Amino acid sequence: MTKGNTMDFTEKTMRLTHAGVMKMLEAAIARATEAGQPQCIVIVDASGETLGELRMTGAKFLSLKSARAKARTAASIRAPSANIPEAVRAGIPAATEGNMTALPGGLPIRIDGHCLGGIGVGSGTGDQDVDVANAALAAIGADLC
Amino acid sequence: MTKGNTMDFTEKTMRLTHAGVMKMLEAAIARATEAGQPQCIVIVDASGETLGELRMTGAKFLSLKSARAKARTAASIRAPSANIPEAVRAGIPAATEGNMTALPGGLPIRIDGHCLGGIGVGSGTGDQDVDVANAALAAIGADLC
Amino acid sequence: MTKGNTMDFTEKTMRLTHAGVMKMLEAAIARATEAGQPQCIVIVDASGETLGELRMTGAKFLSLKSARAKARTAASIRAPSANIPEAVRAGIPAATEGNMTALPGGLPIRIDGHCLGGIGVGSGTGDQDVDVANAALAAIGADLC
Amino acid sequence: MTKGNTMDFTEKTMRLTHAGVMKMLEAAIARATEAGQPQCIVIVDASGETLGELRMTGAKFLSLKSARAKARTAASIRAPSANIPEAVRAGIPAATEGNMTALPGGLPIRIDGHCLGGIGVGSGTGDQDVDVANAALAAIGADLC
Repeated sequence: MTKGNTMDFTEKTMRLTHAGVMKMLEAAIARATEAGQPQCIVIVDASGETLGELRMTGAKFLSLKSARAKARTAASIRAPSANIPEAVRAGIPAATEGNMTALPGGLPIRIDGHCLGGIGVGSGTGDQDVDVANAALAAIGADLC
Repeated sequence: MTKGNTMDFTEKTMRLTHAGVMKMLEAAIARATEAGQPQCIVIVDASGETLGELRMTGAKFLSLKSARAKARTAASIRAPSANIPEAVRAGIPAATEGNMTALPGGLPIRIDGHCLGGIGVGSGTGDQDVDVANAALAAIGADLC
Repeated sequence: MTKGNTMDFTEKTMRLTHAGVMKMLEAAIARATEAGQPQCIVIVDASGETLGELRMTGAKFLSLKSARAKARTAASIRAPSANIPEAVRAGIPAATEGNMTALPGGLPIRIDGHCLGGIGVGSGTGDQDVDVANAALAAIGADLC
Repeated sequence: MTKGNTMDFTEKTMRLTHAGVMKMLEAAIARATEAGQPQCIVIVDASGETLGELRMTGAKFLSLKSARAKARTAASIRAPSANIPEAVRAGIPAATEGNMTALPGGLPIRIDGHCLGGIGVGSGTGDQDVDVANAALAAIGADLC
């Protein structure tokens, strides 16, 4: 067996720092407060592992679970959770043990062409959830959805 | 109680070697690369236990879960996962804790009339997933679906 | 709220490609075959998410689970799984739902000062497991442990 | 059946706001940064339900799980997690499905005689974890442990 070139086995990428995560949480809280709708906010990395979570006073505690599914879905498909194709929309939640969801409120965190993870927001209407997620993306200079 | 003839209590079968599993993974990667759609690939034995898994660079990490469900479904029904009968399609995912799925991309591994397990592929369209699974089956001389 | 500099919110890192994962699996199989001890091999990324898995013919099927815990532990602590400090060795497995283990056979994947994930090997003695994991690291030019 | 006085059926309590949770996270990050040891921080309410979580850059991702167990343990016993009595120390983790742990780093959040929840910190030594948790408690004027 010949020893391969390390170049073939690795590639460069980017990740979010905790300064970025805290900035996103603060911006999400500010926007949710403005809208008068307390929210659950979950931020995950590019592999879906949790980076930060916050349940605002008055938010629905079970929405922390759906916010997590939204964040993980967006990070996995590198697109809004609501973009799940029609063909798999019925079957995919069970086939992924509830990890994947087509509920609106999950957005990918994209900067300079890299997907660094996902944010999921839940407790409000779909529109409110997406609005809060976008406020968090804007705060760190990530692409809006 | 009379002691029975061992012949009545056992029967011969076949199983996949890890050489077969690696060959299938390589063929699946080659086909997915050709199609320009990175995939998650899962291969299980006739009892649904994992033999091999690979998540290609750029594939959706949650698709590893759905690929596992597809592979296990195909090994269990010894037919493509998409063949789940209409009558049970709505109820069977929950009743099997998400193990069984009708999503396309799961194919049985059949050689000489034996079912040796299943392969599940996920991250692309249903057609792309099935195409990659068939490329893996072809590589070891298994029946195509 | 002032908009922060994107530089503060992200940092550069590296990840393993599937070419690297396949190279590691091949090298692990070759070394295990040489040693006459079939093994279960699991490779995870820096967040512990599965990149590749292989159960060799004759390996213990439950060792796939312990190999996964070893790989995730090594990726999390960025050191061999056997290095878990004495003080937490008794309590940490339960507190992490079995995810963290002090069993030998889990090694971090380190290249150029980055930790790209972990490899876990199980089915042999601790020494055999570590030996196979190191063979996989050597094949991609990663630091040996 | 006579209808009782509502006074008999309810009692006043206090809960932590998300402003308090964010203040605790910020203080924990500041102290961990000062100590040069990135940490995972989890804050739960009096029922053990998550209020906030943060994984600092460079912290061990599996320590988020143990930090959660520490926080929940401290909130449940309304005392430091390390105070679990010797008599139940061996048996209680399995009997609570890993929810209760005697690992140091979990402290109750007590203000004016009320227990509002718990904070769990993990990735450092036991002493470092407790120190960071206390810094978070100090930031909101809660009792130190």
